[in-house]
Amino acid sequence: MTKYVYLFKEGKAEMKNLLGGKGANLAEMTNIGLPVPQGFTVSTEACTRYYEDNQVIADEIVTQIFDALAKTEEEFGKKFGDSENPFLVSVRSGARASMPGMMDTVLNLGLNDVAVEGMAKQTGNVRFAYDSYRRFIQMFSDVVMEIKKSNFDVILDEVKKAKGVTADTDLTADDMKDVVAKFKALYLQEKGEEFPQDPKVQLMESIKAVFRSWDNPRAIYYRRMNDIPGSWGTAVNVQGMVFGNMGDDCGTGVAFTRDPSTGEAKLYGEYLINAQGEDVVAGIRTPLPIYTLEQAMPAVYKEFCDFATLLEKHYCDMQDMEFTIEHGKLFMLQTRNGKRTAAAALKIAVDLVDEGMLTPEQAVLKVEPKQLDTLLHPNFDADAIKAAKPVAKGLPASPGAAAGKVYFTAADAAAAGKAGLPVILVREETTPEDIEGMDYSKGILTARGGMTSHAAVVARGMGRAAVVGCHELEIDEHNKTLTVNGKVFVEGDNVSLDGSTGCIYAGDIATVEAAVTGDFARLMEWADAARTLKVRTNADNPRDTKQAVEYGAEGIGLCRTEHMFFEADRIKSVREMILADTVEQREKALAKLLPIQQGDFEAMYKALEGRPMTVRYLDPPLHEFLPQKSMVAEIAEIASELGTTSEAIIKKIDQLHEFNPMMGHRGCRLAVTYPEIAAMQTRAVIQAAIAVKKECGYDIVPEIMIPLVCEIKELQYVKKTVVETIEKVFAEQNTTIEYSIGTMIEIPRACVTADEIATEAEFFSFGTNDLTQMTFGFSRDDAGTFLDSYYNAQIFESDPFARLDQNGVGKLVKMAVKLGRETRPDIKLGICGEHGGDPSTIEFCHNVGLSYVSCSPFRVPIARLAAAHAAINEKNSK
Amino acid sequence: MTKYVYLFKEGKAEMKNLLGGKGANLAEMTNIGLPVPQGFTVSTEACTRYYEDNQVIADEIVTQIFDALAKTEEEFGKKFGDSENPFLVSVRSGARASMPGMMDTVLNLGLNDVAVEGMAKQTGNVRFAYDSYRRFIQMFSDVVMEIKKSNFDVILDEVKKAKGVTADTDLTADDMKDVVAKFKALYLQEKGEEFPQDPKVQLMESIKAVFRSWDNPRAIYYRRMNDIPGSWGTAVNVQGMVFGNMGDDCGTGVAFTRDPSTGEAKLYGEYLINAQGEDVVAGIRTPLPIYTLEQAMPAVYKEFCDFATLLEKHYCDMQDMEFTIEHGKLFMLQTRNGKRTAAAALKIAVDLVDEGMLTPEQAVLKVEPKQLDTLLHPNFDADAIKAAKPVAKGLPASPGAAAGKVYFTAADAAAAGKAGLPVILVREETTPEDIEGMDYSKGILTARGGMTSHAAVVARGMGRAAVVGCHELEIDEHNKTLTVNGKVFVEGDNVSLDGSTGCIYAGDIATVEAAVTGDFARLMEWADAARTLKVRTNADNPRDTKQAVEYGAEGIGLCRTEHMFFEADRIKSVREMILADTVEQREKALAKLLPIQQGDFEAMYKALEGRPMTVRYLDPPLHEFLPQKSMVAEIAEIASELGTTSEAIIKKIDQLHEFNPMMGHRGCRLAVTYPEIAAMQTRAVIQAAIAVKKECGYDIVPEIMIPLVCEIKELQYVKKTVVETIEKVFAEQNTTIEYSIGTMIEIPRACVTADEIATEAEFFSFGTNDLTQMTFGFSRDDAGTFLDSYYNAQIFESDPFARLDQNGVGKLVKMAVKLGRETRPDIKLGICGEHGGDPSTIEFCHNVGLSYVSCSPFRVPIARLAAAHAAINEKNSK
Repeated sequence: MTKYVYLFKEGKAEMKNLLGGKGANLAEMTNIGLPVPQGFTVSTEACTRYYEDNQVIADEIVTQIFDALAKTEEEFGKKFGDSENPFLVSVRSGARASMPGMMDTVLNLGLNDVAVEGMAKQTGNVRFAYDSYRRFIQMFSDVVMEIKKSNFDVILDEVKKAKGVTADTDLTADDMKDVVAKFKALYLQEKGEEFPQDPKVQLMESIKAVFRSWDNPRAIYYRRMNDIPGSWGTAVNVQGMVFGNMGDDCGTGVAFTRDPSTGEAKLYGEYLINAQGEDVVAGIRTPLPIYTLEQAMPAVYKEFCDFATLLEKHYCDMQDMEFTIEHGKLFMLQTRNGKRTAAAALKIAVDLVDEGMLTPEQAVLKVEPKQLDTLLHPNFDADAIKAAKPVAKGLPASPGAAAGKVYFTAADAAAAGKAGLPVILVREETTPEDIEGMDYSKGILTARGGMTSHAAVVARGMGRAAVVGCHELEIDEHNKTLTVNGKVFVEGDNVSLDGSTGCIYAGDIATVEAAVTGDFARLMEWADAARTLKVRTNADNPRDTKQAVEYGAEGIGLCRTEHMFFEADRIKSVREMILADTVEQREKALAKLLPIQQGDFEAMYKALEGRPMTVRYLDPPLHEFLPQKSMVAEIAEIASELGTTSEAIIKKIDQLHEFNPMMGHRGCRLAVTYPEIAAMQTRAVIQAAIAVKKECGYDIVPEIMIPLVCEIKELQYVKKTVVETIEKVFAEQNTTIEYSIGTMIEIPRACVTADEIATEAEFFSFGTNDLTQMTFGFSRDDAGTFLDSYYNAQIFESDPFARLDQNGVGKLVKMAVKLGRETRPDIKLGICGEHGGDPSTIEFCHNVGLSYVSCSPFRVPIARLAAAHAAINEKNSK
Repeated sequence: MTKYVYLFKEGKAEMKNLLGGKGANLAEMTNIGLPVPQGFTVSTEACTRYYEDNQVIADEIVTQIFDALAKTEEEFGKKFGDSENPFLVSVRSGARASMPGMMDTVLNLGLNDVAVEGMAKQTGNVRFAYDSYRRFIQMFSDVVMEIKKSNFDVILDEVKKAKGVTADTDLTADDMKDVVAKFKALYLQEKGEEFPQDPKVQLMESIKAVFRSWDNPRAIYYRRMNDIPGSWGTAVNVQGMVFGNMGDDCGTGVAFTRDPSTGEAKLYGEYLINAQGEDVVAGIRTPLPIYTLEQAMPAVYKEFCDFATLLEKHYCDMQDMEFTIEHGKLFMLQTRNGKRTAAAALKIAVDLVDEGMLTPEQAVLKVEPKQLDTLLHPNFDADAIKAAKPVAKGLPASPGAAAGKVYFTAADAAAAGKAGLPVILVREETTPEDIEGMDYSKGILTARGGMTSHAAVVARGMGRAAVVGCHELEIDEHNKTLTVNGKVFVEGDNVSLDGSTGCIYAGDIATVEAAVTGDFARLMEWADAARTLKVRTNADNPRDTKQAVEYGAEGIGLCRTEHMFFEADRIKSVREMILADTVEQREKALAKLLPIQQGDFEAMYKALEGRPMTVRYLDPPLHEFLPQKSMVAEIAEIASELGTTSEAIIKKIDQLHEFNPMMGHRGCRLAVTYPEIAAMQTRAVIQAAIAVKKECGYDIVPEIMIPLVCEIKELQYVKKTVVETIEKVFAEQNTTIEYSIGTMIEIPRACVTADEIATEAEFFSFGTNDLTQMTFGFSRDDAGTFLDSYYNAQIFESDPFARLDQNGVGKLVKMAVKLGRETRPDIKLGICGEHGGDPSTIEFCHNVGLSYVSCSPFRVPIARLAAAHAAINEKNSK
């Protein structure tokens, strides 16, 4: 028979998956001899079973619960519902990972009309007993039975009003009895039955409530945000009550073994005399700093300090502890690895190595890769932001804080940026044409679009703060005004935004630049020593490239050449090329682009100082380079610039219109229909490499990447143009260099025919953005309309565009890796695109044996750390 | 060493892959003792090698050719270029499958300034010799060296003009010598070198020209149309010349052993006295019917009849033969299985069984499934069409002939159709809203769109003739006019169109209905006995269902419920449902649809008479049910109908706008966000089944199909709604019936997670249209813009939307079949969508072990026959 219930003394820290974090640590503390009020844990497997059994707790589990209860009662020498010496318990949820979205605690469970009298006798305090009872009724009704807490508050207020008092403490024991009676009446009215008097019923209802809370919308949302699988379930901890509110020799508090904000190595926390845990949280009384306990209760303080040191040494990590003092006796109610800021995490990890508690590899595992994000972007000055109230909130699309003046078009933003003004670009939504304006902005704000909208993706890539999809914004681009909940901003007005929280503020809030401290550098060194996966960056200009190299990038994994095409001095030639009717006209326009593109590549090769660069050839559908049909003025301007008519441009826009551009004429399909584009890009890449090699001596091996290949013959066809052009350049310049030609694997068919494609491709770079779209059959731009329903229905637990879907897309990736290696054992394999910076995806990439991941510059340190985690975890699991 | 060259006596009929059809049959005729002018065949492998070697014929092949040439010269006792007795040859291409796109014949090869004199001596006819020489120069220059034939014709005309004659035959021997000199001068001028005098050079150049012709655009196009792989290559046949033009005891002709139009069992053909083969083809002289040869040359005629009988018995098939008579001696130049009309194919196959020459299974293999198409649609009356000249030509999108009056909107077409008028619907392109109008039309004509456009797909499904993508049409919907090359048609004017050829005619051309003859029925009986794959149909209304059942459909594999939503009496409720803001409003609209949809299903269950039906739930994005934003008048009309405002409708259209609707909010994603739609459809299906079971006693087992599933939890979620609704209906009606719930497999992720999906799905139906789109990453609606480049570059050899891409999409299908069976060994597997009617795809489906294919009603007989082919071929290959 499966064991579903464990006494604390039966468990240990390693049983976290079964007992949850809280339960496992209560067991561990019990085992190492700390004073823990005893109790038992109902396992996560019981929760899973509960859902399998259609939300019923099986008889065998009930039996085990009551058996453990009996043993705990015996330990305490008390009895549930006893009229002399009643046993009371707390019931708390406790999942494998800490989950604030779940059920709150129920305290004082076991009180009923009989036990309350027993409690009164035992404590000699009738008022305390009835106060505890009324608190329990309210808590149980609220947390377990879903009766609104405020209904009870109304009754309490009425009683106080009738008595002419304002504070709870002014109510007498009889008043409390009156309150209890009224609370019970409310319960009867709301639920149609009496408040349960049987403590066992109270217990089972509470346990069920914890199980149910695993699937409440908050918990689901939290799990999705934190990549926690729904299948884990939660455990339930039932623990004998101790009381911190029975007099001035009682108290309760929480403390960290080190400062969770700074990482400083000193006890940090607070406590309250004569209080229960909830009072600390509720904030009615102001808790005292933990160090003052030394004076108040010297012996208790010393004991607590010893426990803290013991626990930190035991867990080799900073601990977050809860304790209660009952009549001068210290009880430990919880310990866990403490949450901490990124800066603290770095300092603690490095300090613990210096203190001999951790090896460098262990220290690396103590810092969550995602946490580094906040260290790599500007933040609001802590004092400046304290008083600020957001005027609106959108989606936190790209982290970091930004303050500046609002501009409503990319052109205005670029102009202001060039003039040295701090710019916040405000748009309904951004388009590829806005690139330059975005680049000159400190922050980007949009009214539409989701976490993977154009604005979000590009801002993250550029490391610009961005808040998107803020529906409260009313943007009038024509009149250049932004209205937010009635407040109007005109061009040049100051706003501030926080891309990590989605908050938008009126006015200018001071920001501080990101700083990389010594701890950070030391930890990254250890990470680099541990990892085997290389980390490259996605960059399209020398500035981003330099930034990425500073952050440790080992090359460029994805240079999107089309991003170079949007800038003002080249878009004209690009449009000329698109409007060309003949190969000759197209080649004429391309000839103008060649020196510009070659110059781009030269600057990037220089910024890379010899590191490799994968250049992806023109990818987006050509219509993206033309204005929308409705933009009459812009079309006229372009027409006059190019010496043609608006009609001609509109005709071309019509020709280029596609029903599903994502699946249209783009990627290598452009190179198949217009080989001259691929030829121009090849010239630019190779000539730049030769020039920079000559000038700087770097031994550059250009990596040419053909996008969107679905069929080997497609690659062969384009490769032929590329190789012929390279041979021409070699002949012209009377020199040769090495180069390699590969492809993006971003179409399902490329995965299943990867063995064939590898005959021509020297490397694969997995374009998991598109691969995810095609594999799921949904478009990133449109999925927003239904993905919320999918999260709510728990069909998806995480955003497949943020975290690689290992079960589906991952299978295709694995297949392509296997087939590719069968043909070409030494094939170079990488991943580019948004997923390349996601830690769980990086672990996947490590495990399937890719050579590198490539991500935006600001995610490079995160990727380095995640790669180290993957390598160390793999080693440890062997 | 590989043998690349085979003397005719070294080959046999079975070596068709190596020697090509013509070469293998020349060898076979040699072996069975027929008088064949001897020669040799350069194999298809030599052609493949030629391309591998960068279009050079390897030395070893050259050696083998000259060796075979020497042996053939010896056989004839003649020598290449000999001044007394010169050896002349013909050079002809000959692929595995007959390919009219390839190189024409070169005759009289071997003639030069010396040999022509030898020929003159030998024949005693100087004029004949020089006429042959000038013909050879012209033919070689045209066919091998690509000098325009007309340049030579100009010279000949000039010579005739100078001599004051009009007919070639009026030119003397000296005139011919003059022509030869002038032809040679033209050659020198065009090619910069003398006309090659070395017969071996002439021969090698001709062989290379045949190899080159394998990859000319015509050949590539023909291969694509006929599913012939580019890797096959062509063989070259070099054969000693015999002359049918050396006097009145000479002649040449072609004949079939049976009538290729009707299949009637009598010799059919024609011949010319004193002529070469090309004269028969050129049509300058009118050939005589073959039976008149009996009088002209009785012995030769008898011999030829004996040969014909022998060959037909030998090949067990109707033969198409070429022959030449040289001075009273009969030579056989070619035999092959003759091309025939569909009707003839059926009659011949059935007759050959009755004559004991074939078994029924062999007869089944003699009829190409695709051929049946023409028997299943109306055709123009043969006499009526003879004189008609097309006014324009578009893509032959859906076979059959149609004549009627033009209408320019679906509503006008429907109104005219309801009034009993024959309608041709003329549209820029069709949209799903045009369904009803299309249904009331005999033919559909569009100016835009390709073979897989909406108009094409729907017309094929409905069995309506359609010509699409005819760019010559100028359609003015507003003024209701159609202008074609200057000719204007107004509403009600007559036009006729042929969906099998793409031709469009002015006026009314008589059509004849399709007739299913007794031969057809007998052959299909044999096919049904042989096949194991079941054939279902895609049908959405009782009329199509009845048609399909008549054509032998064993059930419905795909009932697209949304097609039912477009008809006039229900589109209003559909729109009301879409415009609903709350679940309640939506349910109110759905309640109106329920009885209508239930009625549809009842009618279809009745039409099926107990056969199974798979009902696919609502699939298209909802915007398809609303007009386009620009259709102001229609929007206003809908608004007034529904009691709302145009603004509200426009707002909804904006909300529903998607960047890539193909990958948007559709399929089961609709059922996830609006479970009430799935609930209504479930009620309709189940209530209809119960009602028809009660009324007619059919034991109906509804098959409910959830479309576009990509993840097992999605299916679970929708299935829950379906099952709950079914349980409710059962409870209400106090009865139960069996049912099954399955899914379309049309998303790559569904294929790779098919093992999981099969835990919930009782059947899979492969939706290979969408699966092809997602697997290739291109949209059917947009691919037209670049697919031509892909065919030209030989990246694709066939349209992946017409013929299943077995190498890519097929791999995913196989994977899903394997994974699905692992979970559920008895899972029912089928395919629906366009591919289900394609013979090569049907063979694939048979081989991977699907249970059934489903195709449009008019393709059911084709599918039955193709399934029989697959089963018989599999048996034969064992």
